[in-house]
Amino acid sequence: MTIPASMSALLLTGDGYARQPSGPVLEAMEPYVRLDTIATPAPAAGQVLIRVSRASVNPSDVMFIKGLYGQPRVKGRSAGFEGSGIVTASGGGAPGDAMVGRRVAFATGQSNWGAWADFAIADARSVIPLIDGVSDIDGAALIVNPLTALAMFDLVREAGQKSFVLTAGASQLCKLMMGVAAEEGFRPIAIVRRDDQGDILARAGAAHVLNAGAGDFRSRLRDVLGEEQPRIFLDAVTGPLASTIFHAMGRGSRWIVYGRLDPADTTIREPGQLIFQDKRVEGFWLTEWMRRATPDQRAARSLEAQERFASGRWRTDVTAVLGLGEAMARLPEELARPNGKVFLAPNGA
Amino acid sequence: MTIPASMSALLLTGDGYARQPSGPVLEAMEPYVRLDTIATPAPAAGQVLIRVSRASVNPSDVMFIKGLYGQPRVKGRSAGFEGSGIVTASGGGAPGDAMVGRRVAFATGQSNWGAWADFAIADARSVIPLIDGVSDIDGAALIVNPLTALAMFDLVREAGQKSFVLTAGASQLCKLMMGVAAEEGFRPIAIVRRDDQGDILARAGAAHVLNAGAGDFRSRLRDVLGEEQPRIFLDAVTGPLASTIFHAMGRGSRWIVYGRLDPADTTIREPGQLIFQDKRVEGFWLTEWMRRATPDQRAARSLEAQERFASGRWRTDVTAVLGLGEAMARLPEELARPNGKVFLAPNGA
Repeated sequence: MTIPASMSALLLTGDGYARQPSGPVLEAMEPYVRLDTIATPAPAAGQVLIRVSRASVNPSDVMFIKGLYGQPRVKGRSAGFEGSGIVTASGGGAPGDAMVGRRVAFATGQSNWGAWADFAIADARSVIPLIDGVSDIDGAALIVNPLTALAMFDLVREAGQKSFVLTAGASQLCKLMMGVAAEEGFRPIAIVRRDDQGDILARAGAAHVLNAGAGDFRSRLRDVLGEEQPRIFLDAVTGPLASTIFHAMGRGSRWIVYGRLDPADTTIREPGQLIFQDKRVEGFWLTEWMRRATPDQRAARSLEAQERFASGRWRTDVTAVLGLGEAMARLPEELARPNGKVFLAPNGA
Repeated sequence: MTIPASMSALLLTGDGYARQPSGPVLEAMEPYVRLDTIATPAPAAGQVLIRVSRASVNPSDVMFIKGLYGQPRVKGRSAGFEGSGIVTASGGGAPGDAMVGRRVAFATGQSNWGAWADFAIADARSVIPLIDGVSDIDGAALIVNPLTALAMFDLVREAGQKSFVLTAGASQLCKLMMGVAAEEGFRPIAIVRRDDQGDILARAGAAHVLNAGAGDFRSRLRDVLGEEQPRIFLDAVTGPLASTIFHAMGRGSRWIVYGRLDPADTTIREPGQLIFQDKRVEGFWLTEWMRRATPDQRAARSLEAQERFASGRWRTDVTAVLGLGEAMARLPEELARPNGKVFLAPNGA
């Protein structure tokens, strides 16, 4: 296909990192991105240019455009870490050349040409050719959440306990992880902030669903932890809720932080537990996992994710699909709706 | 020798754990221990009875008698985790029988018959026969501090960086560790709370001594961390000071908590660092190390400690040696003096 000289894109208005911490809520688009037309970027050697079909909107995208993510913003470049599309050009090199014309899932990594645009740029070795039965929507959400879910669930498997604790239990990521867990006989304890999510999460694989806002939360938490003896705590929230959960968990527990939804102080309630109970606090970042995993490990996990979507064992809950212009007007309100994911459809689709 | 039917001992007045957290300062003896005469205990199979020559007073002893340590108190039993003395009886079993009459260092572990008494009970396999040249005082401080120092310094060695950070830098433990470090070309960064400790610590092996109370502490900390790039933070303090130090350290840093001198809140200032900078928070406890180490590892480390004392490379700084009765009156004030360690001398010595 002919590649147009210019493209529409949602461009970052900020540079580097935010000076002040803030929460994960996207209160408006205008402080962070603007819709504009710019020259279509050209891929460098080892990169490919992708015509974007669908782009994800992940919590990490929101943190990134606000300057709160572990990667600096480059002002005037396009946002969006993840999408699906057709490879339209290779910047040179065998891996990229072999991908031209293929339908792929991609993550833009540090290319600085993101997926919230008509065209994006990705590392040629990181794109994942999509198998039949995986839709453009599923493909656009194939990497960040599914691979994080599979990689973090490996930590649960290795810990040797059947139960584990999840905050933000109603997130897409947690639902994917609980699906895998339930299949293998594991018993997720999902912590949520609403009472109406219990049934959805039980179907998704939760063995227990605890509402952190309920008056009896602490006593129920204590009971469930006593009964299930989980040792892994996968935490997207931090702050006082996560502190309370970690404090209540038993000997040898690991608090693994992978998100920061609550900007309030995160306290280790009793540091003596680190000494005398062999507990610890650490983090998980998919980018770091990708860096450490072998190509075979990455390929195996990618294929597993695709097969789960193709077979219907995993599905993507969609709350909205927005064009780039619509996104400027409506993305914040669509993101505020629970139980699903928002996608962008560039290229006037 | 004849074993007397009764003995003097400092006995715990509290049971189990304290209800409320409190600080590490021993404000008085009376709330926690009392001097009394009780029946000399008899060792069970696998244990030995030791006539105590000298007993240590470690920070962990203070935390223990206050009910703040990771082991419950047993009311009416004697305090004191560590000492030196002569094995006077074996409760049966080859390891204990072979020790009778020998001069040893011992840790009382969970025997509940501690070293702040005329006689103490220890696991026969854990006592360490003392070589010539190691005094009773050195022997009484051979286990808790020296083995912790050697075991934690292994963590520094394994991390592959030449520099590391220590809080409570003027403690006996830190001085022992800095001695080993300096010998091997490592560069300790000692954090202290007084300005007059700089020279002592430089001689002990510190590459940098930073006074946390100084007005320019944060800028000096930033400069030194930038220059030395330490990745291991061995922390006896916790609280806001430790939070500040960990926050300022670079990618891949490990905050290893082994003491809790500051009862104030311990906050992870930026949990995003756990995710994006691969930082983590964990603990170290000698009891856990002992449990995991092989007998050969324990023996090698014990011998290394003794040889360091015998050769003069390590020395024990003594601020006071108190009889049991004197301890009731004077231990709190003697502990408040800096730059040395307090010992007890039971048996009217």
